[in-house]
Amino acid sequence: MINRSFPEAADTKTKQIYDLLRERILQNRYTAGDRLPSTRDLASEFGVSRSIIVEVYEQLIAEGYLEGRQGSGTYVADLGQERPFQVQLDETVESGDLAELPKNPARFHGIDFRPSFPALEHIPYKKWKETALSIFDRLHTADYGYEEDPAGNGELRANICRFLLQTKGIRCSPRQVVVTAGATQAIDLLCRLLLKPGDAVATEDPTAPFIYQIFASTGAEILPVPVDEHGLRVEALPTAPIPKCVFVTPSHQFPLGSILSIGRRIQLLEFARQTGCYLIEDDYDSEFRYAGMPVRALRELDSERVIYVGTFSKNLFPSLRLGYMVVPQDLLAPLLRLKQLTDIHCPTLPQITLARFIADRHLERHIARMKRIYSRKRKRLIDSLNATFGGGVKITGDAAGLHLIAEFSDRKFDSLAAEQLERRNIKIYPAERYAIVKGKQENRLVMGFGNAAESQIDKGIMAMADLRNAWI
Amino acid sequence: MINRSFPEAADTKTKQIYDLLRERILQNRYTAGDRLPSTRDLASEFGVSRSIIVEVYEQLIAEGYLEGRQGSGTYVADLGQERPFQVQLDETVESGDLAELPKNPARFHGIDFRPSFPALEHIPYKKWKETALSIFDRLHTADYGYEEDPAGNGELRANICRFLLQTKGIRCSPRQVVVTAGATQAIDLLCRLLLKPGDAVATEDPTAPFIYQIFASTGAEILPVPVDEHGLRVEALPTAPIPKCVFVTPSHQFPLGSILSIGRRIQLLEFARQTGCYLIEDDYDSEFRYAGMPVRALRELDSERVIYVGTFSKNLFPSLRLGYMVVPQDLLAPLLRLKQLTDIHCPTLPQITLARFIADRHLERHIARMKRIYSRKRKRLIDSLNATFGGGVKITGDAAGLHLIAEFSDRKFDSLAAEQLERRNIKIYPAERYAIVKGKQENRLVMGFGNAAESQIDKGIMAMADLRNAWI
Repeated sequence: MINRSFPEAADTKTKQIYDLLRERILQNRYTAGDRLPSTRDLASEFGVSRSIIVEVYEQLIAEGYLEGRQGSGTYVADLGQERPFQVQLDETVESGDLAELPKNPARFHGIDFRPSFPALEHIPYKKWKETALSIFDRLHTADYGYEEDPAGNGELRANICRFLLQTKGIRCSPRQVVVTAGATQAIDLLCRLLLKPGDAVATEDPTAPFIYQIFASTGAEILPVPVDEHGLRVEALPTAPIPKCVFVTPSHQFPLGSILSIGRRIQLLEFARQTGCYLIEDDYDSEFRYAGMPVRALRELDSERVIYVGTFSKNLFPSLRLGYMVVPQDLLAPLLRLKQLTDIHCPTLPQITLARFIADRHLERHIARMKRIYSRKRKRLIDSLNATFGGGVKITGDAAGLHLIAEFSDRKFDSLAAEQLERRNIKIYPAERYAIVKGKQENRLVMGFGNAAESQIDKGIMAMADLRNAWI
Repeated sequence: MINRSFPEAADTKTKQIYDLLRERILQNRYTAGDRLPSTRDLASEFGVSRSIIVEVYEQLIAEGYLEGRQGSGTYVADLGQERPFQVQLDETVESGDLAELPKNPARFHGIDFRPSFPALEHIPYKKWKETALSIFDRLHTADYGYEEDPAGNGELRANICRFLLQTKGIRCSPRQVVVTAGATQAIDLLCRLLLKPGDAVATEDPTAPFIYQIFASTGAEILPVPVDEHGLRVEALPTAPIPKCVFVTPSHQFPLGSILSIGRRIQLLEFARQTGCYLIEDDYDSEFRYAGMPVRALRELDSERVIYVGTFSKNLFPSLRLGYMVVPQDLLAPLLRLKQLTDIHCPTLPQITLARFIADRHLERHIARMKRIYSRKRKRLIDSLNATFGGGVKITGDAAGLHLIAEFSDRKFDSLAAEQLERRNIKIYPAERYAIVKGKQENRLVMGFGNAAESQIDKGIMAMADLRNAWI
């Protein structure tokens, strides 16, 4: 049925008559060639002014329902349909199975040890609001139009360069920086550019599920390369087929937490230079380093084979959806073209807000403050694990970031244990769920302390200890 | 060279010594197995406290440059390199050739008849700022985290449904609405979902260049279908191969401006139902209709074969980068999954701002106001064309939107004429540049009046008339 009631729209007389005539034509109650009453006659039939009927006829002529013939009236057009036309409307839909991707722990009211999720309660709301406000008076009219460069706002890109120099030792020009919708878009764009179905891509194993899924969506063959306490085992990189790119998290391996040693970095760069493959360096949380200086980026050593990917989801907030990549010269033009055809560019006002937020040193101060807060949470988690499990637990991968690895020698926290704990409102993350080749991470848990409340950590660890059937 | 100066970073003693030792190791001046001086000796050599040397050694051990051997000192690790390692840094890059896509006319100080570009000087800055401000006090902590649904903010999707019902007669549920980074992302996602290399896609000819480019980037065969004064010539749709989808702008064909007649709408839907192809309906500017009621959407007649794509770039502002699609049930789950792997979701704060902006009826009022402003500009352009070119010009496609078609019988404004005028700071857009099959639009200009200043329109048209070699 076409002529439904439109409770929220104001139904004018014009619209009511338009709908009525339209329905009659679509349902073949008037047929092609029928002559319609004159506007005068129809006006008197409906008890409305003639101008309303004129308007309805004009609309129906413009849309092709009717044809006006000079001096001889208005006729129903030939719509070419033999049967009454069916209108299909279905309003009940299910969203279906979604990929297993970061859900919002803020909506979970329990203890959530999810890795790589920042403490939302400490987000600098007020400073962000002030900055967001402050930009309006400085905006140009042009800032509301399309940006000229798909790489993003120039001020933001310059500030990202300064941030990278100060925190990661990376020297690059704003021209090499492409602002993206989070690191996710950066990696998706790189996949689209570098991988065709049948190509090969090497990735750390274990890794983040959504990284694996993005690679899988390209139709490329995924070559898992094992990780140990010094990061990616570079000597295990395959050479037949040669991967088109290698995905690495050298500053803080996700999820195992190891730092890629300098020896392996050099080997990895030699591999890239010899094979011509690209290295995608995902640096998602290494500015939160708890001892010594931040680890240098792989990109610092090579600007031609390394694509550096960064994000503001962990050091600011996830729903900002801004990240960036630092791109080798020969990939820049095709990447910008792809970015342009994907979404033209990222939203401008949030970019300008972020540029000011960095320029005013709010980001730097926020990171320094969060390092203290995360450092306390990390200590609490480590103390709690040691006090509860004693020699039965070994902690690794805790030098930086928002998570660590707890390796158990006499217990096993597997997906079954995770389900049992979830019924008690505690979420844990077995390392096995991040494994491509299964069966090698069974004694490990990935434990995030970013968003877990400090006061709740002990309670969560106690509940784990209480789990009787976790004993091996 | 590694040890560059970092003028903006504070170089502590620790960092200076770290850089020095690191450079010596990378350049093979220290070689694998060399024993380093004791921390005490090195501290006295550099004249710093021993704790600084301890920190540097720890950092270099953590990163794999050095190895500590229990009770016997610190040694240079074997980095596996034979020659001094080369660091590559190149900071000069060119952005290369970018696709021909909307540049920002606001940065062009002349008369720009670009189609489909809104009047930036009339954007409701103040109301947008007020709304952007007002949301902060109502935000939940969770609004800073990842959204649970890749389709976007629920409040915005509900408001889009209301807007669609009121302005286009579309009835849909918020579950069917997917918020995207402009219409561009919607079309890109649809291409990725529906088209594989070797598939066929049909599109109106002429069409927007970036639509063509997105289709071309999928590797699909593009089947151009001609357009006349009643829109897409549906009878010319190819059946061998059957296209996987058909791209249409039924409410205001881009660029020719025609409305797809109801007869052809029915034929097109029958074609889609019989062949199983999808119809991508791009409705970019039809809410600006200058006579009668807005034209109904094709989606109103069918919810299973039509994917409706909308944008806030024309009726609000382009750099907001928000659009949406209304999706048939069977495409919803795979589209959401693809959206999730592309950028997880659109930025939340702009979505919530827009939701409030619609709910507070600011969008509705802005559209009503702009309709009056555009109506004046449109009249000025039509009057100016008629007064200047008289019987030599025919105007079509002007019932809605931000552009019209001027068809000349005794002049030819081609790309050469466009170049000549651009030297006089006037930009015109020959319809040929939107043509896939060239040579059929040579007497037509696409004339946008959205962003051209009303007071400048006459001047621009006069300059066109002055162009001597435009006479045929």
